[in-house]
Amino acid sequence: MTTPLPDCDLLVRADTIITQDEKRRIISNGAVVIKNDIIADIGTYADMESAYAPIERLDMVGKILMPGLVNAHTHLPMTLLRGVADDLPLMRWLEKHIWPVEHQLTEEMLRIGARIGCAELIRTGCTSFLNGYFKEFTTGDEANQAGLRAVLGEGFFSFPSPMFPTAEDCWKTIRELHSKYSSSQLISTAVTPHAVFTVKPGDLEASYHLAKDLGLQWQIHLAESPEETAICLDKYGKRPVQLLADLDLLSPCTTLHHCVDVTSEEIALLSERQVNVVHNPSSNLKLNSGISPVQEMLDAGVVVGLGTDGASSNNQLNMFREMGLAALIGKVRQNDASAVNAQSVLDMATRGSANCLGMSELGQIAIGSPADLIAFDLSSPNMMPVYNPISHLVYASTGHEVCMTMVGGKILYLYGNYWTMDIKALHYDALRAKEWVVSVAKK
Amino acid sequence: MTTPLPDCDLLVRADTIITQDEKRRIISNGAVVIKNDIIADIGTYADMESAYAPIERLDMVGKILMPGLVNAHTHLPMTLLRGVADDLPLMRWLEKHIWPVEHQLTEEMLRIGARIGCAELIRTGCTSFLNGYFKEFTTGDEANQAGLRAVLGEGFFSFPSPMFPTAEDCWKTIRELHSKYSSSQLISTAVTPHAVFTVKPGDLEASYHLAKDLGLQWQIHLAESPEETAICLDKYGKRPVQLLADLDLLSPCTTLHHCVDVTSEEIALLSERQVNVVHNPSSNLKLNSGISPVQEMLDAGVVVGLGTDGASSNNQLNMFREMGLAALIGKVRQNDASAVNAQSVLDMATRGSANCLGMSELGQIAIGSPADLIAFDLSSPNMMPVYNPISHLVYASTGHEVCMTMVGGKILYLYGNYWTMDIKALHYDALRAKEWVVSVAKK
Ligand SMILES: [Zn+2]
Ligand SMILES: [Zn+2]
Repeated sequence: MTTPLPDCDLLVRADTIITQDEKRRIISNGAVVIKNDIIADIGTYADMESAYAPIERLDMVGKILMPGLVNAHTHLPMTLLRGVADDLPLMRWLEKHIWPVEHQLTEEMLRIGARIGCAELIRTGCTSFLNGYFKEFTTGDEANQAGLRAVLGEGFFSFPSPMFPTAEDCWKTIRELHSKYSSSQLISTAVTPHAVFTVKPGDLEASYHLAKDLGLQWQIHLAESPEETAICLDKYGKRPVQLLADLDLLSPCTTLHHCVDVTSEEIALLSERQVNVVHNPSSNLKLNSGISPVQEMLDAGVVVGLGTDGASSNNQLNMFREMGLAALIGKVRQNDASAVNAQSVLDMATRGSANCLGMSELGQIAIGSPADLIAFDLSSPNMMPVYNPISHLVYASTGHEVCMTMVGGKILYLYGNYWTMDIKALHYDALRAKEWVVSVAKK
Repeated sequence: MTTPLPDCDLLVRADTIITQDEKRRIISNGAVVIKNDIIADIGTYADMESAYAPIERLDMVGKILMPGLVNAHTHLPMTLLRGVADDLPLMRWLEKHIWPVEHQLTEEMLRIGARIGCAELIRTGCTSFLNGYFKEFTTGDEANQAGLRAVLGEGFFSFPSPMFPTAEDCWKTIRELHSKYSSSQLISTAVTPHAVFTVKPGDLEASYHLAKDLGLQWQIHLAESPEETAICLDKYGKRPVQLLADLDLLSPCTTLHHCVDVTSEEIALLSERQVNVVHNPSSNLKLNSGISPVQEMLDAGVVVGLGTDGASSNNQLNMFREMGLAALIGKVRQNDASAVNAQSVLDMATRGSANCLGMSELGQIAIGSPADLIAFDLSSPNMMPVYNPISHLVYASTGHEVCMTMVGGKILYLYGNYWTMDIKALHYDALRAKEWVVSVAKK
């Protein structure tokens, strides 16, 4: 008499599993065992098949199975403004094209923008993201409905601001957001002041203490461009990193977005304080902010994640495109063709970004981690031949090779079909939103 | 009694036609009329429908119809070596990984590499390309069979070389290649010495006169990196552009590939001599060659085309990816967010590249031009919403939005199906080729 095998909800089989676990194991002919939304086991298909009795099976023949990518910096509702104004310097772009429309955005429009963004993230294999915008419950609701994992950052400028008359109003909104999703499996919150040139030191400090109080990650755009440095020097007599250091705001619960204009001394300080940094290559190029010294940060031991920024300054939310770009521009920035190699870029888009979100259990296929998985198809000609799968993910992919996206064991996309979203309806929503934006922009 | 309408072979209808003609007309609800492989007319659908009696119709509802992209610099058989070695400096990459395999490449392997390359070009909307490699008849045959338009450049190093014991052997091969395809609709030839550091001045001159004699474009890798400049200065006491100028090799039939390390004076000279330049952003970044001053060349009136270079230094042959990259890195190179705008990049990938190939009739939808067309789908979420289609082609596309590729009025790809290639068979060819490369590389 044999003991019955333990059951599991789902067994996912694939030709190649890129685990991105601590040892960066790659398993041929492997399988992932999922129980209660969590990765219960991982190993060769033969071993898993003989150890579990799965209720359901998903067989990804000829595919790579890997952790879902983590987008550590985006502004999802801005997807509404994708391509509305390109090829402009930052300030003219903001003042003439982005802000006039943003100030009039209705809740419905925020939701449509977030929804389009969710669809693109799902399509291109991103399973979790950090969002920064206003009325964040809209993105929270849309992500939750789409089945994506999201960290919501209610953005704020110094008070009084158009959104918040006083700091207390802002803290109240953040606490409410935090409490609204306290029992959510998918949605959580962060504290996200906009930048050192738009938020006063006192408000930065107060927000940091709020984050500590709630046990949340504290996130800010920092050192995005030489212009920001100039403003900061002018205002406070010090550079952005030094300003935060002097305010005692640099710690492992701090995530800095961009860090393009940072010196070697500042990088050493970021490493010492175990601060996380998010690299946004497309946006930094498109707005001519510069190229972040990513290899130098990695060498110094700084945790680096990857983000797309908003679709209005990218104009994609495609983490595969972002990985390729990070690897390519990292070489000229470092003046070394071996800099920012493929594995280090995949690490940024998975484990690095997960840390930036304050959720180090994400970005890897490991026992106990949430079952956030994607499958990557190798049948299109740009994937032929395959010598090294990591190389293809970073250098040869378009992002549209993703053929399955799963969050917490739940399928969101499989072979061209969205399981949680109505893409045809979204098409008409986008048409309507475009007409609204065009009419509002004319005023 | 009414006169019967003139017939035509095919009428292609689309929601939006981006003509890339001299006036950059964009036609809403338009149609292209094709007769004998040539664009016979273009206008609104209503006008075309009432003026012609088409034998066949192709209705691209909701799509953008545009000229096929022109890849002005690639090495198609090297697709075989896609991802075989990344993140390495140029010389180590060449000497340790590329050359050892290249020296052993069989005709069959060259054909498989070219075939994979053709499939990727077709999939990503490229309808013609300039190729540089050896045994160019292999790429010629494969392109012809796939239905792509190709210009073949039999590559050569100074004589005696592994391929050609004497210059006469080389000229003979080029003349034979030229004559082999003299009546071909799709395949033509160019004269393509490798570079100033691998071909002696006398051989450069002789090859230039051969090109003039045969009425062909003369093409060379030039000023690709500061290292090349240093070698050239060391060998000849002058920089690469000056070397060619002094040899009197700069004219409208000259196309220079890369031009990363060029001065403002050199750019003025290139403009004055009406030389064509091909920009290869991915390859220049991946090999850490630098970033070409493209906006400065455009401002000086230099004709600039766009190329992917070989898949082993890119690692894609995706002209949409290349367009996005050109626009993004062009801004930091020029330190101006408005530099290298979307329209100028689309111009490079169409009209500019066509000029680099010596075929200015390509890269536009205009009466009398070959019917090399592609359709671009707007249904995936990264295309929502659409304010400006040119912006989406350059900044928001992955290249996999291409849903129809046509050369000379003949469909090569439509909605996921390749009409001239067997992609499943190619998958097995690629597997076999990979095993061959791995076995050969070990020796
Ligand atoms: Zn941002
Ligand atoms: Zn080349």
